[in-house]
Amino acid sequence: MPTPISPQETRLGWIGTGVMGASMARLLREAGYTVTVYNRTRAKAEPLLAIGAEWADTPRAVAEASDVVFSIVGHPHDVREVLLDETTGVLAGSRAGMIVVDMTSSEPSLAVEAAERFAEKGAVSLDAPVSGGDVGARDGKLSIMVGGDRAAFDALEPLWRVMGAKWVYQGAAGAGQHTKVVNQTLAACTMIGICESLVYAQKAGLDLDTVLESVSSGAAGSWSLSNLGPRIVRGDFAPGFYVEHFIKDLGVALAEAERMGIELPGAALAHRLYREVEKQGGGRKGTQSLVLALAKINGVDWPEND
Amino acid sequence: MPTPISPQETRLGWIGTGVMGASMARLLREAGYTVTVYNRTRAKAEPLLAIGAEWADTPRAVAEASDVVFSIVGHPHDVREVLLDETTGVLAGSRAGMIVVDMTSSEPSLAVEAAERFAEKGAVSLDAPVSGGDVGARDGKLSIMVGGDRAAFDALEPLWRVMGAKWVYQGAAGAGQHTKVVNQTLAACTMIGICESLVYAQKAGLDLDTVLESVSSGAAGSWSLSNLGPRIVRGDFAPGFYVEHFIKDLGVALAEAERMGIELPGAALAHRLYREVEKQGGGRKGTQSLVLALAKINGVDWPEND
Repeated sequence: MPTPISPQETRLGWIGTGVMGASMARLLREAGYTVTVYNRTRAKAEPLLAIGAEWADTPRAVAEASDVVFSIVGHPHDVREVLLDETTGVLAGSRAGMIVVDMTSSEPSLAVEAAERFAEKGAVSLDAPVSGGDVGARDGKLSIMVGGDRAAFDALEPLWRVMGAKWVYQGAAGAGQHTKVVNQTLAACTMIGICESLVYAQKAGLDLDTVLESVSSGAAGSWSLSNLGPRIVRGDFAPGFYVEHFIKDLGVALAEAERMGIELPGAALAHRLYREVEKQGGGRKGTQSLVLALAKINGVDWPEND
Repeated sequence: MPTPISPQETRLGWIGTGVMGASMARLLREAGYTVTVYNRTRAKAEPLLAIGAEWADTPRAVAEASDVVFSIVGHPHDVREVLLDETTGVLAGSRAGMIVVDMTSSEPSLAVEAAERFAEKGAVSLDAPVSGGDVGARDGKLSIMVGGDRAAFDALEPLWRVMGAKWVYQGAAGAGQHTKVVNQTLAACTMIGICESLVYAQKAGLDLDTVLESVSSGAAGSWSLSNLGPRIVRGDFAPGFYVEHFIKDLGVALAEAERMGIELPGAALAHRLYREVEKQGGGRKGTQSLVLALAKINGVDWPEND
């Protein structure tokens, strides 16, 4: 375990500077930490380098320069590569006392494997996926769901505080990822209801804004209905969160459920419908574009005003 | 149209004194209106008679004594009987200028039929289903979704105000019922997500209260998650809204969707799962008991602490 976390004592590493990662790393840099950064596409790291972050050529090199290494990349296979690759991965550059934090939404079983592999070297690996989207990342208002070593979770509080509005220890390695599965299953099923009921309302000839006025604030209400319902009605499919990322997350949920021998019929339905959206070319649209699959199935035209 | 609605000028009729209806009629009586009441089981109307409501032996007799007649009964076939029966129904006792308001969650097509039948007699029939449950009914905080004649909707504002926190004109006859279909479809799909994700969390070995702490306030949040999630975790299946009534409402949604030639896959899934809950003896449990069907499918034990 490193000495108490502080900008003076703790060297941070950051792997993955997509929309989320770039914002999160920026906040840490602005909080005074040294940050060594790696990203598959270097250009996307340039804004961080411009505010004083150091570049490293591999995840391994990031690890060698850092006490705490964060990663937030695309898919579970990317997590496996950046963390566990025997030549270029974080593991290859790790040492006792180091803490690795994977914030990608990824597989719980991979989080368990990573924790075991790092433990063999005396290091600690936490799984810490987030919700809150690009806006939450930019504003440091994420909800961070953490699994793994409790003492490491506690030690990192100054860093959670920079990135999050809420950080909750969920249990042993993988528990953070399991909690993210819960989060995405909730969001997916809620979105099915929003989209199919708006298609119904359209077909029934209702005024959709007036319908939202009746149903948004009561027992049928949700964050998604209040925030994305009006966008669906307007045909605004700009992404808060990409369909293709949601398909990945729901795929993780279904694979994990199958591994545990259980069914998630709502998440399975959402996964099928989102793949339809992707087939229609909507992979980089926002998750509210689920309505386009349901409209098509039902022979209803839906406006698109991207 | 009656003269402006007031306790002095307007005689109200009320048909159906179940949990919701009894509370709503009580508020109107307490607001100073005369109320003539009918219920299939007279005993359930006694508390209203005790505060000065008058009893009538048939819906027809209610109509003959009233300017505005409300009904809130069980199923669409009950609505048909109390409103349209040629001998004992409200229609048989109706006359020009009368307003009939059916607040049962019922079929949009029946609402259209009723509006037409009453129009033949110079009367007006509105469909005005509600959401907000027993607590909303008791406190006069319902959301009332209204279809039918706009002038009648406007004229009844003093009465909506007694029963509702929100009353919205949704369009022509049937539009109130269509909006209620939207409301129930939203609620049902959200509940699928809540229940299947909590079963997943249980199976994954997470602490469910801690999971709720991470997911309730963000993009996965909903009224149902905040209000019913903790009850599900505790195994508290006391009804806010009965499973058997939700099955009826979802049956209306699916029948109407089929009539319109569209699919509601989420509502259909919820309908199947709720029928499983009913088969397990849960028809008079609250809607949160959907978790019991999902737990059973997945071989997970769920606590029951009713």
